[in-house]
Amino acid sequence: MEIARTKAEIRRLVGVAKKAGQTVGFVATLGALHGGHMSLIERARKETDFVVVSIFLNPTQFGPDEDLDEYPRQEEKDLALCEKAGVDVVFAPSVEQMYPSGHCTVVKIEGLSEKLCGANRPGFFAGVSTVVAKLFNIVEPDIAYFGQKDAQQGLIIKRMVEELDMPIEIRMCQTVREEEGLAMSSRNAYLDAKQRKQANCLYQALQEGKKLIEGGQVDRDKVTAAMERVITQAGPCSIDYVAAVDSQSLEPATAENRSWLLALAVRIGRSRLIDNIVVEIPGPS
Amino acid sequence: MEIARTKAEIRRLVGVAKKAGQTVGFVATLGALHGGHMSLIERARKETDFVVVSIFLNPTQFGPDEDLDEYPRQEEKDLALCEKAGVDVVFAPSVEQMYPSGHCTVVKIEGLSEKLCGANRPGFFAGVSTVVAKLFNIVEPDIAYFGQKDAQQGLIIKRMVEELDMPIEIRMCQTVREEEGLAMSSRNAYLDAKQRKQANCLYQALQEGKKLIEGGQVDRDKVTAAMERVITQAGPCSIDYVAAVDSQSLEPATAENRSWLLALAVRIGRSRLIDNIVVEIPGPS
Repeated sequence: MEIARTKAEIRRLVGVAKKAGQTVGFVATLGALHGGHMSLIERARKETDFVVVSIFLNPTQFGPDEDLDEYPRQEEKDLALCEKAGVDVVFAPSVEQMYPSGHCTVVKIEGLSEKLCGANRPGFFAGVSTVVAKLFNIVEPDIAYFGQKDAQQGLIIKRMVEELDMPIEIRMCQTVREEEGLAMSSRNAYLDAKQRKQANCLYQALQEGKKLIEGGQVDRDKVTAAMERVITQAGPCSIDYVAAVDSQSLEPATAENRSWLLALAVRIGRSRLIDNIVVEIPGPS
Repeated sequence: MEIARTKAEIRRLVGVAKKAGQTVGFVATLGALHGGHMSLIERARKETDFVVVSIFLNPTQFGPDEDLDEYPRQEEKDLALCEKAGVDVVFAPSVEQMYPSGHCTVVKIEGLSEKLCGANRPGFFAGVSTVVAKLFNIVEPDIAYFGQKDAQQGLIIKRMVEELDMPIEIRMCQTVREEEGLAMSSRNAYLDAKQRKQANCLYQALQEGKKLIEGGQVDRDKVTAAMERVITQAGPCSIDYVAAVDSQSLEPATAENRSWLLALAVRIGRSRLIDNIVVEIPGPS
């Protein structure tokens, strides 16, 4: 496995692979790799010839009061995990390498970026879409893999690729969960044992919402109220949002929608945790 | 010469050229080709193997009260000019081909986009940078050519390419002028004979500013005041701006700047005309 620290180096390595006719798969990460990332890498390994993983803790997607400073950093461990998973190249640039000068170019997906997490984290998705655009232009992958846990991020990146005509295919991969349902996340590391147990309420709330919808409940407020009850009963926390939205537009779900996204963001201790599921509603027969 | 109407078709044609090891040169236009465009095409023809010209009257870079409807359209003539100039492919997509759905992705170069023309034409440069990002991703040229007449546009596109890490080189080409100095522009077509003569004042004002600076004048307000006098004395018009700015940052020029951009936008009749020159000031010896 090679480690590229500069744009020139990763371009050279990918160039060689492409020249040899290999397809390039790409997984973009902030580092602190967990089972979710590994499942993306495994899929890229299966479906493409040359697998690139980026490890870049992108400062522009953290707000001034957010957890950039305490976000887990474990490069040595991450590199070992990539090596073991058969990654061909890790691209691990410095902040200076990615943002050499005052950065004034922004790629923004208006509308989609302001909803759900975007409402609580202004500027977050512009930071994400801009750095992903840069990474796509540097790595030039054929296929890029993202996790369904970050459903809104996935929709935004798909829209960006489509509307900017980037010659890249985006594949979304299932959320990987701990045994009791907690979605894997680098931010789970901030939880102590008790909070970790409490955090299972996110998944339980999603299951409660799913059960109600599948039982015929199409009033989104009733669905989200029931989900909120599951969360607040589990212990002290602060709910950023609990939402039932159309899974494509992220507009509030209505009885007409056939595909609902149940999504939530909850702060437990120092962790802001997110999770979601898509519930398909069979059409009238 | 081939004419591609769809993204798939232009990608196929460029793909064949690239596979054969050819370098791809690109000139993006709104159509209504004139000598300025032709000079870009000639340079691309000289410097690259495979020349692509896009003809796309991009609606998103026109404001609601601007001249999209009356902008000259002359596709047949444009195609003949391209053919004669040895263009390999013209990419002439429909608006539906370029913007199939509600378009919510915007590429914006903050700061640079609000100055000069951006102050008078809000949204203009976001429309330009977004469509150029799309065209770059569709055509994937090695080198793209732009005219110095649109100096601010050139700076913005260079910055976009640099900051989004697009693997493309931007080359700026000298402004092409009529005999008496008027910069060639598709919008010159709106001028009647008298206005056309009056419009020479833009170039005369730039020359006046240059003369003052070369004579030692470093007070930008005195320089622009003298330029404005040249314009207002030439006949009835409305000045959008006459500016003396640093040629890279577009910030107001000071005695410390070694490279001044003199730039102006003037409305004569129905035409909004722009022009500029760069004046290099020798450093202290």
